[in-house]
Amino acid sequence: MSDAAILVINGPNLNLLGRREPEVYGSTTLEQLEERLREDARRLAVGVEFFQSNHEGQIIDRIHKAFLEEKIDGILINPGGLTHTSVALRDALLGVKIPFIEIHISNVHAREPFRHHSYLSDAAIGVIAGLGITGYRFGLAALVERLRSRTDLGLYLPESNRNSD
Amino acid sequence: MSDAAILVINGPNLNLLGRREPEVYGSTTLEQLEERLREDARRLAVGVEFFQSNHEGQIIDRIHKAFLEEKIDGILINPGGLTHTSVALRDALLGVKIPFIEIHISNVHAREPFRHHSYLSDAAIGVIAGLGITGYRFGLAALVERLRSRTDLGLYLPESNRNSD
Amino acid sequence: MSDAAILVINGPNLNLLGRREPEVYGSTTLEQLEERLREDARRLAVGVEFFQSNHEGQIIDRIHKAFLEEKIDGILINPGGLTHTSVALRDALLGVKIPFIEIHISNVHAREPFRHHSYLSDAAIGVIAGLGITGYRFGLAALVERLRSRTDLGLYLPESNRNSD
Amino acid sequence: MSDAAILVINGPNLNLLGRREPEVYGSTTLEQLEERLREDARRLAVGVEFFQSNHEGQIIDRIHKAFLEEKIDGILINPGGLTHTSVALRDALLGVKIPFIEIHISNVHAREPFRHHSYLSDAAIGVIAGLGITGYRFGLAALVERLRSRTDLGLYLPESNRNSD
Amino acid sequence: MSDAAILVINGPNLNLLGRREPEVYGSTTLEQLEERLREDARRLAVGVEFFQSNHEGQIIDRIHKAFLEEKIDGILINPGGLTHTSVALRDALLGVKIPFIEIHISNVHAREPFRHHSYLSDAAIGVIAGLGITGYRFGLAALVERLRSRTDLGLYLPESNRNSD
Amino acid sequence: MSDAAILVINGPNLNLLGRREPEVYGSTTLEQLEERLREDARRLAVGVEFFQSNHEGQIIDRIHKAFLEEKIDGILINPGGLTHTSVALRDALLGVKIPFIEIHISNVHAREPFRHHSYLSDAAIGVIAGLGITGYRFGLAALVERLRSRTDLGLYLPESNRNSD
Amino acid sequence: MSDAAILVINGPNLNLLGRREPEVYGSTTLEQLEERLREDARRLAVGVEFFQSNHEGQIIDRIHKAFLEEKIDGILINPGGLTHTSVALRDALLGVKIPFIEIHISNVHAREPFRHHSYLSDAAIGVIAGLGITGYRFGLAALVERLRSRTDLGLYLPESNRNSD
Amino acid sequence: MSDAAILVINGPNLNLLGRREPEVYGSTTLEQLEERLREDARRLAVGVEFFQSNHEGQIIDRIHKAFLEEKIDGILINPGGLTHTSVALRDALLGVKIPFIEIHISNVHAREPFRHHSYLSDAAIGVIAGLGITGYRFGLAALVERLRSRTDLGLYLPESNRNSD
Amino acid sequence: MSDAAILVINGPNLNLLGRREPEVYGSTTLEQLEERLREDARRLAVGVEFFQSNHEGQIIDRIHKAFLEEKIDGILINPGGLTHTSVALRDALLGVKIPFIEIHISNVHAREPFRHHSYLSDAAIGVIAGLGITGYRFGLAALVERLRSRTDLGLYLPESNRNSD
Amino acid sequence: MSDAAILVINGPNLNLLGRREPEVYGSTTLEQLEERLREDARRLAVGVEFFQSNHEGQIIDRIHKAFLEEKIDGILINPGGLTHTSVALRDALLGVKIPFIEIHISNVHAREPFRHHSYLSDAAIGVIAGLGITGYRFGLAALVERLRSRTDLGLYLPESNRNSD
Amino acid sequence: MSDAAILVINGPNLNLLGRREPEVYGSTTLEQLEERLREDARRLAVGVEFFQSNHEGQIIDRIHKAFLEEKIDGILINPGGLTHTSVALRDALLGVKIPFIEIHISNVHAREPFRHHSYLSDAAIGVIAGLGITGYRFGLAALVERLRSRTDLGLYLPESNRNSD
Amino acid sequence: MSDAAILVINGPNLNLLGRREPEVYGSTTLEQLEERLREDARRLAVGVEFFQSNHEGQIIDRIHKAFLEEKIDGILINPGGLTHTSVALRDALLGVKIPFIEIHISNVHAREPFRHHSYLSDAAIGVIAGLGITGYRFGLAALVERLRSRTDLGLYLPESNRNSD
Repeated sequence: MSDAAILVINGPNLNLLGRREPEVYGSTTLEQLEERLREDARRLAVGVEFFQSNHEGQIIDRIHKAFLEEKIDGILINPGGLTHTSVALRDALLGVKIPFIEIHISNVHAREPFRHHSYLSDAAIGVIAGLGITGYRFGLAALVERLRSRTDLGLYLPESNRNSD
Repeated sequence: MSDAAILVINGPNLNLLGRREPEVYGSTTLEQLEERLREDARRLAVGVEFFQSNHEGQIIDRIHKAFLEEKIDGILINPGGLTHTSVALRDALLGVKIPFIEIHISNVHAREPFRHHSYLSDAAIGVIAGLGITGYRFGLAALVERLRSRTDLGLYLPESNRNSD
Repeated sequence: MSDAAILVINGPNLNLLGRREPEVYGSTTLEQLEERLREDARRLAVGVEFFQSNHEGQIIDRIHKAFLEEKIDGILINPGGLTHTSVALRDALLGVKIPFIEIHISNVHAREPFRHHSYLSDAAIGVIAGLGITGYRFGLAALVERLRSRTDLGLYLPESNRNSD
Repeated sequence: MSDAAILVINGPNLNLLGRREPEVYGSTTLEQLEERLREDARRLAVGVEFFQSNHEGQIIDRIHKAFLEEKIDGILINPGGLTHTSVALRDALLGVKIPFIEIHISNVHAREPFRHHSYLSDAAIGVIAGLGITGYRFGLAALVERLRSRTDLGLYLPESNRNSD
Repeated sequence: MSDAAILVINGPNLNLLGRREPEVYGSTTLEQLEERLREDARRLAVGVEFFQSNHEGQIIDRIHKAFLEEKIDGILINPGGLTHTSVALRDALLGVKIPFIEIHISNVHAREPFRHHSYLSDAAIGVIAGLGITGYRFGLAALVERLRSRTDLGLYLPESNRNSD
Repeated sequence: MSDAAILVINGPNLNLLGRREPEVYGSTTLEQLEERLREDARRLAVGVEFFQSNHEGQIIDRIHKAFLEEKIDGILINPGGLTHTSVALRDALLGVKIPFIEIHISNVHAREPFRHHSYLSDAAIGVIAGLGITGYRFGLAALVERLRSRTDLGLYLPESNRNSD
Repeated sequence: MSDAAILVINGPNLNLLGRREPEVYGSTTLEQLEERLREDARRLAVGVEFFQSNHEGQIIDRIHKAFLEEKIDGILINPGGLTHTSVALRDALLGVKIPFIEIHISNVHAREPFRHHSYLSDAAIGVIAGLGITGYRFGLAALVERLRSRTDLGLYLPESNRNSD
Repeated sequence: MSDAAILVINGPNLNLLGRREPEVYGSTTLEQLEERLREDARRLAVGVEFFQSNHEGQIIDRIHKAFLEEKIDGILINPGGLTHTSVALRDALLGVKIPFIEIHISNVHAREPFRHHSYLSDAAIGVIAGLGITGYRFGLAALVERLRSRTDLGLYLPESNRNSD
Repeated sequence: MSDAAILVINGPNLNLLGRREPEVYGSTTLEQLEERLREDARRLAVGVEFFQSNHEGQIIDRIHKAFLEEKIDGILINPGGLTHTSVALRDALLGVKIPFIEIHISNVHAREPFRHHSYLSDAAIGVIAGLGITGYRFGLAALVERLRSRTDLGLYLPESNRNSD
Repeated sequence: MSDAAILVINGPNLNLLGRREPEVYGSTTLEQLEERLREDARRLAVGVEFFQSNHEGQIIDRIHKAFLEEKIDGILINPGGLTHTSVALRDALLGVKIPFIEIHISNVHAREPFRHHSYLSDAAIGVIAGLGITGYRFGLAALVERLRSRTDLGLYLPESNRNSD
Repeated sequence: MSDAAILVINGPNLNLLGRREPEVYGSTTLEQLEERLREDARRLAVGVEFFQSNHEGQIIDRIHKAFLEEKIDGILINPGGLTHTSVALRDALLGVKIPFIEIHISNVHAREPFRHHSYLSDAAIGVIAGLGITGYRFGLAALVERLRSRTDLGLYLPESNRNSD
Repeated sequence: MSDAAILVINGPNLNLLGRREPEVYGSTTLEQLEERLREDARRLAVGVEFFQSNHEGQIIDRIHKAFLEEKIDGILINPGGLTHTSVALRDALLGVKIPFIEIHISNVHAREPFRHHSYLSDAAIGVIAGLGITGYRFGLAALVERLRSRTDLGLYLPESNRNSD
């Protein structure tokens, strides 16, 4: 049974995942990614919601809804190109005060200079970049760990394994 | 039996882990961190070496040794303050061509402006910041995943679990 | 009877007014603000329309409509985070040539450096920042004063009072 | 019979063409422009689609559709104010890998400094600025020429004329 | 009877008000402005003092006196050209810890780039620019509202009106 | 019979056209380009002059001559590397007040950063970049259109076609 | 008989002329300079007033007086160190709209970088730097010439001489 | 008997010492500071003069007087906010060529970025910041030491003590 | 009889003097300017040579010749657009070590930002800008004064007048 | 008997003190400096340790030791060239939280621009620059004063004197 | 017999070599330098051509000729002041694709900041600066070595000597 | 017999020479390079010492030793990555006042922007970049030539050849 609810947001162009520039973004589709994260969430015993949009306004609306109507405990967000340009998105996340982790599939530091600055990073718990879609999975686990107030050694690992350690 | 060898490097001041600014860096000591990573490595079936130094030159020497005398397959590095100032460290990592992941315990993006630039990030596979020492564990898993050429969905999870997927 | 029509636009996240960060934005909700401005408009004998959206595109559409379908004489706008990032919004306001006043609830000059630049200010009649929602009320009065071509001493004050001056 | 399909995208505020600032943008309306381009396309024997929106997200959606559902061969885009601010739009164009030409009605180089940088230009085939709506017509012709792999002297000119050369 | 004392400071060149560049600053003289504010103050039931000087040092002396000898509760200041260059003026205002509102008659954001930065704004309650001398009147009302710790809806409006609200 | 005279100027290194870096500049030689433009000019019923030089001073002399001795109505100029460095060339064009269009064969926006600034663009009618030598042909047509004061829909198209419109 | 009145203003530290750093500023004292200019003014048949102060405020007051109480036709000003920092002085000169010429005894372009920018130059008729106190004399003559609306060849030279030319 | 004369200058707002922001500037008043320095001067056998003003011009006048009328050998100056903006003050100190030491009570390097640059420091003998009013006392001693041309080990220490070393 | 030789150099586009932009540069032609300076030179009893070219290289050649073949004592130069771009011209003037004064007809400080920097000014004796062609005449007189080592009061004034001093 | 322990650290190249560039650094050797400080420490009744190294890593190790193994109460540090480049050194000092004062023998503000920024100053109690080795002595006294929580007037002065105060 | 042809280009002002600023450039004339290089070329068994011009255009023409008419294998170039300003020269060298080495007689890094950037260096094989005319000789030898595809140890040394190694 | 002693220093990562990135740095090892330079030194009749370290501190120590214990006359240094980051290394070289030449194997100007600045170049005799290890050999020869005070034509060439000159 889930004891926390996580919202996973993918910003502009991430609906093309697996279909655009696979040499950069890998061949996994957004659906496959979400399926994988759903499994992880089940094992982590948390609820998970997914949202993807190419519209800044819809993403802001979705974040508001998480705050006003739902009881979302944490957000995992890959803001896509909005990372570098959207103060409004920053304001939405700061406004609802839901803790979030920022994910980038590619290593943004190795790309164009304008990708080296994020309007979100300083307000995030942390940032994972360049680890492909694995980054989402780590982000989900880290978010849950943080929400459960575990000690910093208490990383998520499946329970059965932990017992056998 | 390990089929890959990972070198974990901690740069200046990380020997104080758990003993300085615990509100920033947590209360886990470097020894505890290394012990935890050793366990993870065992489960991941890879070998792991640890190195910490406050001396840029010693870290460079260590990286060279990994290339010249050992067969290190991947490096996990938290360069500490050298992140922002050491071209020589960058050159060492570029020179030995060993893939590496860059880790920061704290969220460097939320700190002083001079911590927003890294001389290493664009040459790294990826970067994890702000996830505490959990970041090292994710980094280790991601490095192994990358070295084993798994598909991008093939994130490390303990074998027994993977079968039950 | 109103002899002028004013459009009051609130940009992204201002629907959360009174519900997010009250220590920064006060406890008045958007509905209360609009009600208050409606009263002021009645006393000022002008018509007033309200619009809030988290979508840049919808705000631009609304501005166009004010120009193409309605006879809006002046705009009062708090562009939220779009202040610092939207050239398209600037273009919309410049394109319809409706005079506007820019409002910020908080003192943007005392916040992050990226909030010190506005794409709208140089095209506005004027800017009010840091006076809370009182700023909107002043903005409304100033806009009406400007539209009525009064002399610069002719500040809006309720008629009865003005006679007694 | 058309042997190629071109998508013509007009960004924010271009629906006001002919109605706002005619001294800057001329008196031709968007409908007239599209009609003119439709004729040119007929003569060039290519198909042509039109899209205008004030919403960044809708433009990105439209570009995705061109890639996922249609077989659009080239894009002619006047991104309006998004030119200078939208990394997400850049990512959409780069993601679908459809060649495009960037058009500006006015001479952006003679306007505000923030209009001198475009997030799209370095990824475009080319850029035309300041030639009014004639720029669209040239852009259409150049796009067709490029798609037909003609030599660089093989500029589009109506067939009958070319024979008589 | 006044229950608060406000000091209104006008910096360099504002003695020329109404006599220099009326197309920019309007035709109201400083004396007329002060008379108008005196009336407003009476209606607001606060005391008001006026000071104008072209000497940075005299303005600083005056601010000190407000702190050391008088019991000034709030300051309304139009620092003129000192806005952009005087750290000493900033220090004086910060030193005496009297809350202040910054006023600019013209829209400084639409003028030379060096007028876009103020050494005072981040320390002010708020800033009003471009509303002509009406800005002073709004500033006075907002200052009184703030001093009386009213809720943010409690904007000053003449008493008779307020009763009828 | 020509009713207007156009001067086509090619700056430094454009004499190598077709012989240097054909992957960038195409295989058409300067002579072929000029021949092609001569044909276009005939069809457009304008006179055309050509000038190429690697010497800034000679180009300035030529522009002066167009003003002092000839009756040149418009200039088509590809300033080559002088684009980014020559204030003197800018002054020459501004001084003679002959309208001009700026052409770049390659997409300068996709090349070195120092190629992103032009000393001429803000004084030009418009700029065409990245369309190969087709850009010259469009530039010629646009210049003639502009000189003939046609409406902005009145793009040059061969006469026979125009009649059939 | 003088038909125009000129005010010569020397800013901070110029009272030390001839007594400080003679290798930079020459050995002429301020009194000698004023005496020399008085003679020139007599020959030029204009009235001349002198003012020196180390106080920014007094200089501004003096400029105001020139506008409000006197009928000063032109100002010759060496603003000393205020050149580079005083927006208030700029505002004073712009406010009174009296044409002025800016003088610097030393070649400010050959000194510290912060001396390369002046807040006055773009509003001046012209600037003379590095010609020692001769610069004042030229400035006086040029100001008179400009005020008399002579053609640009009509440089001041004593009448008798001009006839003998 | 004093064999040297020192002038101690305090700039804008330092008359508030001990009365404004004691958490930053301590609780010692300017009078107490001056008394303390007077004692030190007696023990150091030098004469000492004090001057405080909020007027840049008066401070410049005072420095001129020290040069023209008195025989001041050294200056101890805390320029307050003028540190960061006054080229005229720099010019005054450079003009009279009296050696000076710059004092800041607080650690200016730990405050706003605009306090990190001083127009005086490169012309000073040295700078002391952050040591409270102790900094003045050190500055006085260092100035005397420098003026007496002692070796760099010859720090001022009271004579009786020195003998007992 | 001349006891010194002056070379007057006019750079690119100054041959158009009087014929281009008379509202900026006046209506005097280069020939008239040179004639006027020839008269001044006669009265000043110095020789004068004139040179104008639109070619940077020719100007450099001319400066070399002044050094290698002639005995030019001083140079008066209006470098036109080369002012802001030519290091080679700077090197020529520095190389021949002939003192020079830099002249600009218009007030370059009031024009485009790129005109605010000169590669020559810091190496010049002085700079005159904005005084029209009168600036050349002043420059000639100042150059002669400097060459004759007169005291700084010894400005050139016509002989008859000087006797009457 | 010492009641506090001070560590004095000298960074790279300070072992050459008295032997390199005596015109800049004086003729006192490091040994003489340390001897002098040892005497001061005795009089101040504090313990003192000395450390000099050209190795960043050794300095960091030494600072760690002061924290982990010793009970050092305050640090006096002249970081030499590391001042401007070492984030790792900053991190060490911040990590151990031992208060420190930063000393520079020469006036770094009068040297190359890269010496104007220090990575340590904002974390220091204060900074002394340009007072030669006297700066160390003042630094030592100030550090002791601070550690003993004396009032800001309680500057260290030899005991006999203090009694007579 | 020569098996390779080298072109040695000297840019603006290098004709003055040995005659201008000998303290900077040495006393060797251009003729002596060329004679010396001719001897070296003979010993290196390569052909050598020389060209010097103060005209950017002539240098570009010469480079084109080397490509179009001659079979020049390598270029040794000291571009003088054009180094820092000529994109056209860069384009010429890039266009002809002849490998080149860039020479500076003086140490440009120790001179004015604008000399620290070169438009050529990133396209050169290498750069030699500050070694006087010896730099040319090394450049010639290095160019020949590179053209002969020797191993990197195979530095040019006269054959007889090499045998005796 | 050697009449001068040269120290050759190689900084971080140069021990990997020939083993890392041979496409950039060539295949010669550090040992082979040193052997080759030893031969050159023999022929040049100078003594030569070699030092390589990855530790900034050790390199500084070595430079000090060259000054304090040995009589090194010149230094040839390839500082590797420290070139761009080490002020301490700069201080060491400036402190010992031993003339040095800076060598870079690769063309640093064609690499990352941060490699375009060196903390050493302005203090060096000269710089050689991009000529592979040949650069060291030229550097050695140039250093010896400079030390022997030969005329600038007196380049090192093997003795037999020199006799035949």
